[in-house]
Amino acid sequence: MQRIEHHASHGGWQDVWRHESTVLGCTMNVGVYLPPQSANRPCPVLYWLSGLTCTEQNFITKANAQRYAAEHGVIVIAPDTSPRGDQVPDAEGYDLGKGAGFYLDATQAPWSAHYRMHDYVVNELPALVAAHFPATDARAISGHSMGGHGALVAALRNPGRYRSVSAFSPIVAPSQVPWGRKAFAAYLGDDESQWNAWDACELVATARERLPLRIDQGGDDEFFDTQLQSGRLLAACDAVDHPIDLRIRPGYDHSYYFISSFIGEHFIFHMRQLNQAR
Amino acid sequence: MQRIEHHASHGGWQDVWRHESTVLGCTMNVGVYLPPQSANRPCPVLYWLSGLTCTEQNFITKANAQRYAAEHGVIVIAPDTSPRGDQVPDAEGYDLGKGAGFYLDATQAPWSAHYRMHDYVVNELPALVAAHFPATDARAISGHSMGGHGALVAALRNPGRYRSVSAFSPIVAPSQVPWGRKAFAAYLGDDESQWNAWDACELVATARERLPLRIDQGGDDEFFDTQLQSGRLLAACDAVDHPIDLRIRPGYDHSYYFISSFIGEHFIFHMRQLNQAR
Repeated sequence: MQRIEHHASHGGWQDVWRHESTVLGCTMNVGVYLPPQSANRPCPVLYWLSGLTCTEQNFITKANAQRYAAEHGVIVIAPDTSPRGDQVPDAEGYDLGKGAGFYLDATQAPWSAHYRMHDYVVNELPALVAAHFPATDARAISGHSMGGHGALVAALRNPGRYRSVSAFSPIVAPSQVPWGRKAFAAYLGDDESQWNAWDACELVATARERLPLRIDQGGDDEFFDTQLQSGRLLAACDAVDHPIDLRIRPGYDHSYYFISSFIGEHFIFHMRQLNQAR
Repeated sequence: MQRIEHHASHGGWQDVWRHESTVLGCTMNVGVYLPPQSANRPCPVLYWLSGLTCTEQNFITKANAQRYAAEHGVIVIAPDTSPRGDQVPDAEGYDLGKGAGFYLDATQAPWSAHYRMHDYVVNELPALVAAHFPATDARAISGHSMGGHGALVAALRNPGRYRSVSAFSPIVAPSQVPWGRKAFAAYLGDDESQWNAWDACELVATARERLPLRIDQGGDDEFFDTQLQSGRLLAACDAVDHPIDLRIRPGYDHSYYFISSFIGEHFIFHMRQLNQAR
């Protein structure tokens, strides 16, 4: 782990670390916010997964999460959105390949050698965090758009791993919408039965855990109807009595202006779980 | 005035407007944040001037000022840092020409035809704001680095125009440091006696007004000693008993992580003046 950026922020430190990922077979950057409290005691950890076209930079520069992480005393881990480097296969377009890892473990060539973002986020990254930072084992996860999908799937596939999950404008039913269908066909192949294991609406139907789940969705989001369709997750949760707090925010779009407006509420939501002694 | 961006943010609207500037002889973009209160009543206005290499985008995407502008009910106007367009002269390097207007009115060819950012910020822009937005005539001004210099000079040259001035990491004595000397020689010519009218340390010595003045400076700012030198302004203020609240922040650098950490305190500082009935 090599620290490549180091900025004082809200009494703590917004850093960027670079490391060799065994899972992904490439060099990765990851944003790490250490709140002031972490100088004196271990802190819980919030993972943030960004959306299509993003790197580790978008969230750390635009969301202003540091203000709330410092207030509540939580470490924030913001990884990149895909494997990177010349050896990593890519595709034309913003919605497949680099910057578009979809937080799954690909099974199809040429993607399967490197595109294993689920394994990276759920296993390799938490082990690195535990080894290098003053972190407790209390974890929450959140994300935006493709990263909201990633957060929901990470939490639903791994009961007990996270205490709560939230998302901004998530893709909730990737098997049913253009972004998801294109990515899943490439990464997972044409057998759509294999897609269910990476689809939040499918996973919630068989969830063993009743995980606190919060979603904010902009009412004027240009991708709401075509790609995101959070109403599908509301219906899927209602069908099995899984908790969901879905808030449609009139006027808000898909941008970080939306995220920065409500990220403080998501911290409060997660801290209710993260602060509980277990 | 043409609105080219429109984003809901913290209950208000972060917009970007495009207009033809008579003063600058070119098309300009300007960030405009309208707080929720402005839907019902006129609001005071904070002008923000950004630093070298910036456009109107840096502050509106990274500073999280919207959170505080919404809380306090203040319009925030964030212009670009220089004239723009193919007809506008430019120079090699990031510290002269486009992105480096230094908020002065150039007297030397080829700069003098377009580089009139002081006149633009102090006169043309407030007139546009008054005509198009629900603004009172209570104004404050702030900025970062080159923009901190611009804010100090705008306030000190125009008594009565602003109720308060603040800056993050400002260039306080441009006549004495490399960035300022290069720009002033180009824009104002080799007669250094002409430079005093654009140098905050010189202007404060003869200031007729005792304007509330607040500065935050990162203690680990890589430009602190070579370009910024806020101690010079402290000395100049002390010599004439001009108020100054200078806060050196250990560990903080020159980035927007620094600005976003303390911008909330600057809003509180300015609102003390902006909220007074006059």
